[in-house]
Amino acid sequence: MTRTLTVGAAQLGPIDREHTREMVVERLVALLRQGADAGCDLVVFPELALTTFFPRWYTEELSGHDHYYETEMPSPVTQPLFDVAAELGVGFALGYAELTADGHRYNTTVLVERDGSIVGRYRKTHIPGHEDDEPWREFQHLERRYFEESNEGFPVWEAFGGRIGIATCNDRRWPETYREMGLQGVEMILIGYNTPIHYAPDPTQNRLQGFHSHLVMQAGAYQNGTWVVGVAKGGCEEGVESLAESAIIAPSGEIVSQTATDGDELIVATADLDWCNDYKNTLFDFDRYRRPEMYGRITSQKGVVT
Amino acid sequence: MTRTLTVGAAQLGPIDREHTREMVVERLVALLRQGADAGCDLVVFPELALTTFFPRWYTEELSGHDHYYETEMPSPVTQPLFDVAAELGVGFALGYAELTADGHRYNTTVLVERDGSIVGRYRKTHIPGHEDDEPWREFQHLERRYFEESNEGFPVWEAFGGRIGIATCNDRRWPETYREMGLQGVEMILIGYNTPIHYAPDPTQNRLQGFHSHLVMQAGAYQNGTWVVGVAKGGCEEGVESLAESAIIAPSGEIVSQTATDGDELIVATADLDWCNDYKNTLFDFDRYRRPEMYGRITSQKGVVT
Repeated sequence: MTRTLTVGAAQLGPIDREHTREMVVERLVALLRQGADAGCDLVVFPELALTTFFPRWYTEELSGHDHYYETEMPSPVTQPLFDVAAELGVGFALGYAELTADGHRYNTTVLVERDGSIVGRYRKTHIPGHEDDEPWREFQHLERRYFEESNEGFPVWEAFGGRIGIATCNDRRWPETYREMGLQGVEMILIGYNTPIHYAPDPTQNRLQGFHSHLVMQAGAYQNGTWVVGVAKGGCEEGVESLAESAIIAPSGEIVSQTATDGDELIVATADLDWCNDYKNTLFDFDRYRRPEMYGRITSQKGVVT
Repeated sequence: MTRTLTVGAAQLGPIDREHTREMVVERLVALLRQGADAGCDLVVFPELALTTFFPRWYTEELSGHDHYYETEMPSPVTQPLFDVAAELGVGFALGYAELTADGHRYNTTVLVERDGSIVGRYRKTHIPGHEDDEPWREFQHLERRYFEESNEGFPVWEAFGGRIGIATCNDRRWPETYREMGLQGVEMILIGYNTPIHYAPDPTQNRLQGFHSHLVMQAGAYQNGTWVVGVAKGGCEEGVESLAESAIIAPSGEIVSQTATDGDELIVATADLDWCNDYKNTLFDFDRYRRPEMYGRITSQKGVVT
């Protein structure tokens, strides 16, 4: 019997600063209902899906931006998502800014099963951008000011009849991200992202944003024999143009579905989880072919040593 | 001042079992001369460039295939390559089967400078295929019978005005290969390959051979900010159709030159080595952004642990 999981990538268009959580949750619920109509078991929302991408603005005191963070999940305002999920029998993954009771700030994604129960949460490992105000930029990318690097690694959960993992935005550019989950037998990795087209430190990369985003996710899928679901917050948000091009990628590395707009848009694929084994049991039979004793630099050093 | 290195990928068409070393060296010398005419500093030949891809045949006693191995490099028959290199001032990388004085067998590539001196050699780390005869296959892929896995890792050499590394065929499918060299500041990775189109353990991968080959090399280039030169032995050799599609890939991950045939063909690119820094010093500033303490599974376990 083939194990299949019908997954939806629920791309979001811009969320403005003035949009309330209620307005956003309404959009998410509409996409969740669309997903149910399309037969989805799981609908994946982007990174920081409840607010505008606020790390583009500097604030001296972090607490000045506390209103962008969630202190509980679900909360009264996000509870409708959990209720509709349970009602429709559609799970979801949702990215949001998390502020813990003891004052830690993470870029977090929660995974919710078809009965509305929380499976687990992932906190972003690779935080890009910078810590301090850099007024020379057209806009800031202050993720390193607003979020701590998580020290929890890359968990993989038994859920939705398979092994599911999560990565967030910049995590997807690092092959170690996929490999950590590949070494736990992951069969589907859910990746939400906010990717400005303009990359201030090297604008020659602007024209390549879509290519790079697909390249790393396709390679990560193939090299670990896993499905990858990449979901954007796209379009022009508060004057910043962001990459859309959400994609569902097979264990072959092939894109099997891709968004055609940069707004709210659901794409769906029925993922054969056993397809993973075509790669995991042959070319990428890790037990037979990997050479971990030759990879010492990957864990023993951080930067380049010449 | 921009550091540039003009590199040629010297793809080879088939080498039959009956072809002598002298015949093959003549083809290599012709390509080296073409490279000199095109202004190359370095010409890269494929994996096992001196013989047919003999691991497709089983032999009970390995010594029955000793004639496919080199016991010295240069040898009288390969010396002309070194002489022509020095005469023309063009370096080269050459893949061959190595049989050491104490009886070890490696899938080796030697790197030779523009004065004909040996810079170093790389022995293949990731040996694909199988150890024993598997008569159900259309043809064998007995690399694991004919070659030991090297325990020497992935050296990077200061040569040709930059930092040069080597990988061989199947090595290119493993992200750890590029990362080990990326962590040594590599600026150009030379990769020779023999890749049969037909993959017996899962023929659904046949149609994807070209896509997969480019995908992994392009991702490895981008994720480490390095040039990659992928060089095939292509065409139909002893009845086995092999992937051509040799490619020179920029640190952006873009293919800047690609072969158009599956025979002997030289493609050339002038590689700006400083382009690497656009990636190494920004998005992939390893010292700032990597999280080696989160990558423990990559070195502490070989296969999947669930």
